[in-house]
Amino acid sequence: MSAEIICVGTEILLGDILNTNCQYLARQLASLGIPHYYQTVVGDNPSRLQQVVDIASRRSSILIFTGGLGPTPDDLTTETIASFFNTPLEEKTEIIEDIKAKFAQRGRKMTPSNYKQALVPKGAKILPNPLGTAPGMIWQPKPNLTILTFPGVPIEMQKMWSETAVPFLKSQGWGQAIIYSRMLRFRGIGESTLAEKVTHLFDLANPTVAPYASKGEVRLRISARAKSEAEAIALIEPVAQEIQAIAGLDYFGSDDDTLASVVGRELQQAGETLAVAESCTGGGLGEMLTSIPGSSAYFLGGIIAYANQVKLSLLEVNARDLEQQGAVSNIVAEQMALGAKKLLGSSWGLSITGIAGPGGGTETKPVGLVYIGLATPDEKSASFAYRFGSIKARSLIRYYSACNALDLLRRKLQVRANQ
Amino acid sequence: MSAEIICVGTEILLGDILNTNCQYLARQLASLGIPHYYQTVVGDNPSRLQQVVDIASRRSSILIFTGGLGPTPDDLTTETIASFFNTPLEEKTEIIEDIKAKFAQRGRKMTPSNYKQALVPKGAKILPNPLGTAPGMIWQPKPNLTILTFPGVPIEMQKMWSETAVPFLKSQGWGQAIIYSRMLRFRGIGESTLAEKVTHLFDLANPTVAPYASKGEVRLRISARAKSEAEAIALIEPVAQEIQAIAGLDYFGSDDDTLASVVGRELQQAGETLAVAESCTGGGLGEMLTSIPGSSAYFLGGIIAYANQVKLSLLEVNARDLEQQGAVSNIVAEQMALGAKKLLGSSWGLSITGIAGPGGGTETKPVGLVYIGLATPDEKSASFAYRFGSIKARSLIRYYSACNALDLLRRKLQVRANQ
Repeated sequence: MSAEIICVGTEILLGDILNTNCQYLARQLASLGIPHYYQTVVGDNPSRLQQVVDIASRRSSILIFTGGLGPTPDDLTTETIASFFNTPLEEKTEIIEDIKAKFAQRGRKMTPSNYKQALVPKGAKILPNPLGTAPGMIWQPKPNLTILTFPGVPIEMQKMWSETAVPFLKSQGWGQAIIYSRMLRFRGIGESTLAEKVTHLFDLANPTVAPYASKGEVRLRISARAKSEAEAIALIEPVAQEIQAIAGLDYFGSDDDTLASVVGRELQQAGETLAVAESCTGGGLGEMLTSIPGSSAYFLGGIIAYANQVKLSLLEVNARDLEQQGAVSNIVAEQMALGAKKLLGSSWGLSITGIAGPGGGTETKPVGLVYIGLATPDEKSASFAYRFGSIKARSLIRYYSACNALDLLRRKLQVRANQ
Repeated sequence: MSAEIICVGTEILLGDILNTNCQYLARQLASLGIPHYYQTVVGDNPSRLQQVVDIASRRSSILIFTGGLGPTPDDLTTETIASFFNTPLEEKTEIIEDIKAKFAQRGRKMTPSNYKQALVPKGAKILPNPLGTAPGMIWQPKPNLTILTFPGVPIEMQKMWSETAVPFLKSQGWGQAIIYSRMLRFRGIGESTLAEKVTHLFDLANPTVAPYASKGEVRLRISARAKSEAEAIALIEPVAQEIQAIAGLDYFGSDDDTLASVVGRELQQAGETLAVAESCTGGGLGEMLTSIPGSSAYFLGGIIAYANQVKLSLLEVNARDLEQQGAVSNIVAEQMALGAKKLLGSSWGLSITGIAGPGGGTETKPVGLVYIGLATPDEKSASFAYRFGSIKARSLIRYYSACNALDLLRRKLQVRANQ
């Protein structure tokens, strides 16, 4: 038994809309534990849609359609499915009454084209649409095949899914098992290096372990199939602990944790505060830190020192160092961190200065060279060079710079907390 | 001749990621005038992927794969495609050298698992990946069938598409008819209001006009089909001018313009500079401004005044005003803008103070209340209240706050420029 999602709409093929319905339904199926192996998008074209129904009905047992239920001539999902299974359409009086009532509520009259929406294949049940005029259907055209149709409008589809489709699926004995997942997050280790360290876990059957690489971090997802959440967690826990032990400090958190939230938690537990000084990131580091609700408990603020004059006047960067070493240098990064800490009176100071590109690079200081400075509560300071030259995109160099600054501080805080 | 998009990845089937690659590629194919009738998503499973290759290769002549090119065992797109066409894999030395160089740039060593990424089917060409270690391929395994593979990471895929795949497709005689579009961007007007004002243009056949709503702005896309870019532009231009005349100041730019780039252009033309003071956005406004290459020509920097103490000590906000009116108030917003202008010595000062939530709201100052302050070159100041209470998400309230601050300054600059 497996489900397949089929989205009908030429507007998706033209790229005019982002297909968020697929992701919604995919998540729903995963959380219900209903396996789901294929998603297909096809345009408003009867012969190609019939071909898709043909393929899908031979490899999947639940077909979930979205789109093509409206009143216009290019909405042809219902009639095409019915025609594929050689089943006549019949008009449902209750749908006509419902559409009429909805038009009346808005002071309008049902148009002739809406009558089309009252047609369903003989034997199909109506899947009511509380928010719109396009109802769906639940139909079993042959043994071991169930078809559910939904309009393409996400808010209507979602309400119909949760109010009618999910109870129906459960009544059929589907969606009883639970799939529960935990996402482990890592930074400072490549996907391939981490994968090699935990490769023996990729063969597990339950829970399963799978790697994901995303912008600036690596993730491992542990998924367990079980009868209850507690049972799933019991399966996940030992594997999670094993991975964390292997990864050490490269593991920074799980699920909704971010580098900013982990840094915030550590600072708050220590009763300490942070100030930043940003050059090439222009505020991106502060933006990340303050994305966390309640960050005012430990984040005081900072200086966006984009112009050199600001580095000199507010952060008290030494003029000679700035001139001799340049704004993108270890010494200036350190002085910026110390300056932010002093000016704002925080426990920690964290700074970023670098060349985000595309211009401004030289042979000795190429685009992507970034220095991160750290001033510690005991008045020490240090700085670290990073080279993101291979990344090239300005936005990514800036994003990685801010992430690495947070990660640098996170490691310091966690090493200290573990002592 | 038609193309088909095949996205490989169990993470898409689980709903872990939104499939934005499909939309990007769909738009690209539309703009090249290459027909495209199907999109398929399949998991990291060799037999199901083979089945999908089988179906797609019989109905489409260009197969575009994304995902499954990484170094881990579940990345199996290349080997599965090769196996379907009974073609052996061969190791490309140049890929190994490229991966080694990329690892070396970051001071790391290539891992054994990366060698897998150097394998391509015999006869396939490498599709270089300038931003990552996973190259794709261009392969014609049989007459009238071309396969292109890309990694799933959007930024890598997009660069590979535009730099290598598009020139390749054009060299094969595909994508010769031109669909050329201009995206007009608006802020401060709702999608339906704008649509009503230009409703007579929606019936045009060539160029076509279509509305899009996206996060924080409304867009109208004008698309013309023509034999040359010049011919398409000649069709688009009068329609664009009509729309701009109708929209007035709510129109802010087209195509790659952003609020930050338009503000930057105006400031640079006037030879003026800007400093910011940010509370609830925590650096997000500065981050937007510095996302524009060359922004150091007009953006000096700013103060992230997250803690009230920073507002008092650095921005010289009046202590009594802060106490009586609160940090989220017209007067404090104005004083913050003036303070940033004075402290950094800029022509303009722009400030944001508000309640981003989810906590911190009161009956008189609910979550979503945001004040934006502006200090002008002639030493005047003003502030404006915005209520984003209906938006609810902290991240969106912060994003809209920064956008509205930029839009406020943009309008001032453009009104002055038009005088």
